[in-house]
Amino acid sequence: MTAPPLTTSRWFNTKTPLDLPALAGRVVAVYAFQMLCPGCVANALPQAQRLREAFAETDLAVIGLHTVFEHHEANTPAALEAFLHEYRIRFPVGIDAPDPNGGPIPQTMAAYALQGTPSLLLFDRQGRLVHKLFGHPPDLTLGAAVQALVQSGAVAAPAASAEAEDGCADGVCAAPVG
Amino acid sequence: MTAPPLTTSRWFNTKTPLDLPALAGRVVAVYAFQMLCPGCVANALPQAQRLREAFAETDLAVIGLHTVFEHHEANTPAALEAFLHEYRIRFPVGIDAPDPNGGPIPQTMAAYALQGTPSLLLFDRQGRLVHKLFGHPPDLTLGAAVQALVQSGAVAAPAASAEAEDGCADGVCAAPVG
Amino acid sequence: MTAPPLTTSRWFNTKTPLDLPALAGRVVAVYAFQMLCPGCVANALPQAQRLREAFAETDLAVIGLHTVFEHHEANTPAALEAFLHEYRIRFPVGIDAPDPNGGPIPQTMAAYALQGTPSLLLFDRQGRLVHKLFGHPPDLTLGAAVQALVQSGAVAAPAASAEAEDGCADGVCAAPVG
Amino acid sequence: MTAPPLTTSRWFNTKTPLDLPALAGRVVAVYAFQMLCPGCVANALPQAQRLREAFAETDLAVIGLHTVFEHHEANTPAALEAFLHEYRIRFPVGIDAPDPNGGPIPQTMAAYALQGTPSLLLFDRQGRLVHKLFGHPPDLTLGAAVQALVQSGAVAAPAASAEAEDGCADGVCAAPVG
Repeated sequence: MTAPPLTTSRWFNTKTPLDLPALAGRVVAVYAFQMLCPGCVANALPQAQRLREAFAETDLAVIGLHTVFEHHEANTPAALEAFLHEYRIRFPVGIDAPDPNGGPIPQTMAAYALQGTPSLLLFDRQGRLVHKLFGHPPDLTLGAAVQALVQSGAVAAPAASAEAEDGCADGVCAAPVG
Repeated sequence: MTAPPLTTSRWFNTKTPLDLPALAGRVVAVYAFQMLCPGCVANALPQAQRLREAFAETDLAVIGLHTVFEHHEANTPAALEAFLHEYRIRFPVGIDAPDPNGGPIPQTMAAYALQGTPSLLLFDRQGRLVHKLFGHPPDLTLGAAVQALVQSGAVAAPAASAEAEDGCADGVCAAPVG
Repeated sequence: MTAPPLTTSRWFNTKTPLDLPALAGRVVAVYAFQMLCPGCVANALPQAQRLREAFAETDLAVIGLHTVFEHHEANTPAALEAFLHEYRIRFPVGIDAPDPNGGPIPQTMAAYALQGTPSLLLFDRQGRLVHKLFGHPPDLTLGAAVQALVQSGAVAAPAASAEAEDGCADGVCAAPVG
Repeated sequence: MTAPPLTTSRWFNTKTPLDLPALAGRVVAVYAFQMLCPGCVANALPQAQRLREAFAETDLAVIGLHTVFEHHEANTPAALEAFLHEYRIRFPVGIDAPDPNGGPIPQTMAAYALQGTPSLLLFDRQGRLVHKLFGHPPDLTLGAAVQALVQSGAVAAPAASAEAEDGCADGVCAAPVG
């Protein structure tokens, strides 16, 4: 199955817009987040930064995807830019393109049927989606999963740390079921 | 010395605007913060929530003050409202009124000569400023300092956890020196 | 009511054996612990060290009491001495005197009817027991409670963080009910 | 090179004594620790427990090795047994055999020239020592390193979190240089 594209409206920390085909040959970790999601700020984004440090750029691409599905008036591009600056996030971050029909769920989030934020998508070197989880995995299982993909194949998915619930609770924010 | 007023443009989590005279008779803890300041989110605001739980409402007022001195375009009232909702902050939060001359430092922050965020102001039951610190104090010394004021008098100020530095570092954000 | 004495068999970090009458005039915090109790090591003893730093020696005495009620063969005085050295515990620590009838519960632990470890005993300046709790309190409420005693009187007891359960669980170790 | 044997005097949590040849075919993680070493208790042993959960028993053996090089009078087998019980450590733990010449450093610790505790030894499926480090690695790099060995080969060693120092400091305990 071909993975849906990352449909984005703007990028930070990269000179050119990114998408999966351009990253082919590398393992790709996409962290879907919202800047006002407490679990994203406290857990997922720090993990993304540790992941960036733990693997070589040539083996692994770490990417943030701002999948705004609530508080759209607060989660503006200008606010995101300030957030990335204050939290010293240096890896590329794209803004998930808004629904052209005016719905709350942005396009990439809908295409991947993400339940909320944070969510993690892991792609192998061929650009195939291998793991999708809501929440964030333990570092040990994530390190193992990424290493397995770096060496080539796929392993059993790390267990998610969160289940979908209504609204924001326990550090994750669940999207409304469409 | 009379403490400068809290000059604010808007309040959340309270039906009526607050100021020190209206709170006279109670000890008052004012947490100056910015919603994009990492140390405010990780340390000072959780401490404010613990402080709210630890003392009676009749003895202690806990108040947030959004002292925006950078990223004004991101730190809008709408963004703050979403932030307070997501982080479940229930105590009253006021927005420090912008400088009428267009400078970056808001009025209350300037009147108290705060070095940056987070900062803590503690007032006694008579509305006098007793402690001012940049950063956040250890819970033990804060509990002792508030208790001393609740019982009436004042004790030696708890040590600050941060010194002024340029920009944001180590979880605090320093304002430009005027 | 007169507080029972601290009946001890040996002391560390003090030249002379301690007891409540000798400490009269100061607030006294006694941390009952066992060196193999996980919650004592992770939570209560670090709190005791922070408490030691937060208040003046002339106002507050912080004391450890090794109340061994299980694994007596492992919790020897030599083992305790090594433990105190490795964990850099500098405040006075006494060994609760064993039951002369050979039971598992040491004498001071029995006299105060402690449920297990860690437990905290707070005495006022007159040597009266004011608070007794199983587990450890939040730093904020502890700071307030000690400050209230330092200034003279007593306040409502801080809530305990643990309830008695059988055996060791969730970081506390419950003693067998006599 | 052939890895030195694990020379032990007693085992817990296993019916039969263990050594590397008996574990051939599996990746082996050996955590050298002392029960009174703060960094072992706070960091390395919890990591060992997480590691045990993250990989299958058929792929990875996780083993503790009690390498007592100080406080021998406190670190007795009876004390270790109580420690393992209280900290709920379920994986096999061996006691490194004392120096027959009466020196402080036990035999396996000497054979591997370990600098202190905690230390981690990682062996591949052929029983060859692949990584040796003093301190404990980040979970992400450890997960990756173990996964690489589980899949067969070896990767660059994860960076150690500690350098040898004199005595116990910053959570690690350095052995005297022979």
